[in-house]
Amino acid sequence: MARGGRGAGAVTELAIASVEPDLDLARRMFEELRRNTSAGRGITRATYGPGESFAHDLARREAEALGLEIETDAALNLYMTLPGRNRALPRMIVGSHMDSVPEGGNYDGAAGVVAGLAALAGLKARGMRLARDVGVMAIRGEEAAWFNSAYIGSHAAFGRLDPSALSVRRSDTGRSLAEHLAEAGGDVAALRRGEAHLNPRGIAAFIEIHIEQGPVLESARLPIGLVTGIRGCLRHADARCHGAYAHSGAAPRAARRDAVAATVELIGALNRYWEEVESAGADLVFTVGQLNTDPAVATPSKVAGETRFALDFRGLQESVMRAASRAAAELAAEIGARRRVRFDLGDASYSYPAVLDPGLRRRLGELARRAGLPFMELPSGAGHDSAVFAEFGVPTAMIFIRNAHGSHNPDESMELEDFGAAARLLAAFLAGDLP
Amino acid sequence: MARGGRGAGAVTELAIASVEPDLDLARRMFEELRRNTSAGRGITRATYGPGESFAHDLARREAEALGLEIETDAALNLYMTLPGRNRALPRMIVGSHMDSVPEGGNYDGAAGVVAGLAALAGLKARGMRLARDVGVMAIRGEEAAWFNSAYIGSHAAFGRLDPSALSVRRSDTGRSLAEHLAEAGGDVAALRRGEAHLNPRGIAAFIEIHIEQGPVLESARLPIGLVTGIRGCLRHADARCHGAYAHSGAAPRAARRDAVAATVELIGALNRYWEEVESAGADLVFTVGQLNTDPAVATPSKVAGETRFALDFRGLQESVMRAASRAAAELAAEIGARRRVRFDLGDASYSYPAVLDPGLRRRLGELARRAGLPFMELPSGAGHDSAVFAEFGVPTAMIFIRNAHGSHNPDESMELEDFGAAARLLAAFLAGDLP
Repeated sequence: MARGGRGAGAVTELAIASVEPDLDLARRMFEELRRNTSAGRGITRATYGPGESFAHDLARREAEALGLEIETDAALNLYMTLPGRNRALPRMIVGSHMDSVPEGGNYDGAAGVVAGLAALAGLKARGMRLARDVGVMAIRGEEAAWFNSAYIGSHAAFGRLDPSALSVRRSDTGRSLAEHLAEAGGDVAALRRGEAHLNPRGIAAFIEIHIEQGPVLESARLPIGLVTGIRGCLRHADARCHGAYAHSGAAPRAARRDAVAATVELIGALNRYWEEVESAGADLVFTVGQLNTDPAVATPSKVAGETRFALDFRGLQESVMRAASRAAAELAAEIGARRRVRFDLGDASYSYPAVLDPGLRRRLGELARRAGLPFMELPSGAGHDSAVFAEFGVPTAMIFIRNAHGSHNPDESMELEDFGAAARLLAAFLAGDLP
Repeated sequence: MARGGRGAGAVTELAIASVEPDLDLARRMFEELRRNTSAGRGITRATYGPGESFAHDLARREAEALGLEIETDAALNLYMTLPGRNRALPRMIVGSHMDSVPEGGNYDGAAGVVAGLAALAGLKARGMRLARDVGVMAIRGEEAAWFNSAYIGSHAAFGRLDPSALSVRRSDTGRSLAEHLAEAGGDVAALRRGEAHLNPRGIAAFIEIHIEQGPVLESARLPIGLVTGIRGCLRHADARCHGAYAHSGAAPRAARRDAVAATVELIGALNRYWEEVESAGADLVFTVGQLNTDPAVATPSKVAGETRFALDFRGLQESVMRAASRAAAELAAEIGARRRVRFDLGDASYSYPAVLDPGLRRRLGELARRAGLPFMELPSGAGHDSAVFAEFGVPTAMIFIRNAHGSHNPDESMELEDFGAAARLLAAFLAGDLP
């Protein structure tokens, strides 16, 4: 565990403050990635596809040039380690994923790996020998776009990849995860056996640098943020309202069983519920991202007999999300009875919120203040590999980098100066580690 | 014009009351139609297709058997006339269309033609000679499903078919209206020249019997209804809300430009507006029958950046519909500014409401009461050929028949007893005509 801070002597403080991450290395890596993984309007690095493999090979070459120790595990996650003075101590891992969504941006994921290498390069350039091993981990397969499940690499690293995931077919090639893994040189049999490469108790901390996927830092005009937790998600992905089709001009109000009228009333009521919960200080986000009448049946001149929609509740506390889902069911029952329609909200999928380590966050905050790096604390609405590390009990922290145009799109953007602030904070954290 | 009522002598009253429409003829025609125009789950009688032509040929055969005079016009509308005592008087026309939507029901349209023939058969069986000519008109092409415009036949009868309609291609065959018309024996050149077969001043009244396309009579447990007017329709068929896509978990409320949240607020507000207008006694119906996020982009985990939807306002008064459209624009501007999205309600299509003749309706009501036929007055939400006759200044009335399961679907249903009530009222009206 990272400790220290106020206990660190003056010399160490000076050393911490003076570590400069290697931004030339970072600029070079981003440029290489962009040039070699562009596709259509954005960049595409499919899980276990050529783009992701190019990124891993690039990271390996840079790590070799830095003299880091190189390892891979059965899922081909890449570990690039700067040996510490005491190799028996639990190690530190910094990193993120290197795959992307189709036609995504250049920084989502990759920035975390590049930041780790840039920080280690800076530490090496200052001739610093760290107390313990620090590994930069380039993680495979974080994006759910390819095999319909997220965190393939990080689950595999802990020996916890669900074997059924191995037969899922990739959205672009139609070939299974097992085939793609074997072709890339992975050890499918070891993954099936659940062999773990990482032991949570052997990891002092996991630090992930990632672009923010929302506009909060941009609005607040801050280069970086410290993440308080990763919101979980309770989602009714296939909710429906069953009414009855009727002629729009000929059906009077009392005779209608109007699925659109009932659904917009439900969504409006849930938007007000969300405001109330937020006003009371709880963390909740509510979204209806999909809402459709039946394209085969609905016309402007028919009262709609059916709607399909998705309710997406996110938050840092399970109890708040569960309460919102119950509120939705109660409102649906009341509105359904009154409007003579039947709501079927369907099954809810659920992903746990991840609690990030308050001690690590406090330490990062202290270092940022001392380095004059303005920051704020904020929750992460999107999922990250950090959620897996936290779930397995590893003390975990995340640093967000301001990002002007959202993520998962070609317009995602990041200023190298903001990236530099995050990498500098990471380097200071590693340099100041006093076990 | 129909007059009389209280002024009619006792003998005439007796004669009126004793006319029985020929329900055997009606049963036989409905059965023939069903047997010969079934398609899939329902029946299909495409405009100028084999189903519609079969129906017209069937009506012609029955009319010939009754000794009626037969005529067609350039658009192949069929006129089957019982000559009156004074052939110089403006004639009476009863009728409706014989085409259907794809997989529609057997009665939508056809019931009006069958009722006319059944009533004339009953009058002939009683040996009654009417004061003026009464024609049963089997109208072509009322359903917009085939050539994307309604009332082809009735517009053509008045020489007012828009020539551009002739090049529209039929939704099933891909061939133009002109081709189909010529193939069936119509006179395309005459239609292009705008030659009229009917002169509004030569028509004393147009009476259309049609199944109700809503559930009002069914709910009120009444076999027939007298139509007060045909609602017009002001429709924004392609309204849109432009927001911005964002990560559902990472975008806080203040940063969102959520197209779904804004759209459901607009629709909810318009539903309340509709209630207020109705409470104040005005005739208005408001429907959102289509509401969609973009299937290519929207996911449950993204704040929606766009919605597309249709606003459909119907009513008996243009001013009420125009005011509703203005209210929609004002609400959209207010909500759009507050939620930082941009609504574009798009162009509105508009069809005029048709005012049906109060004198004819009063006369039909008197006759129904004397015959012990329970009825109510109600507006028509759907469009009908009667709207065209009324628009050209012909005194027009409609009699609705109760229909259990809506229209434009295979489950449309009508009891022959209810049909008989409408046909009996029509026969009484024709028998009691005292010019």
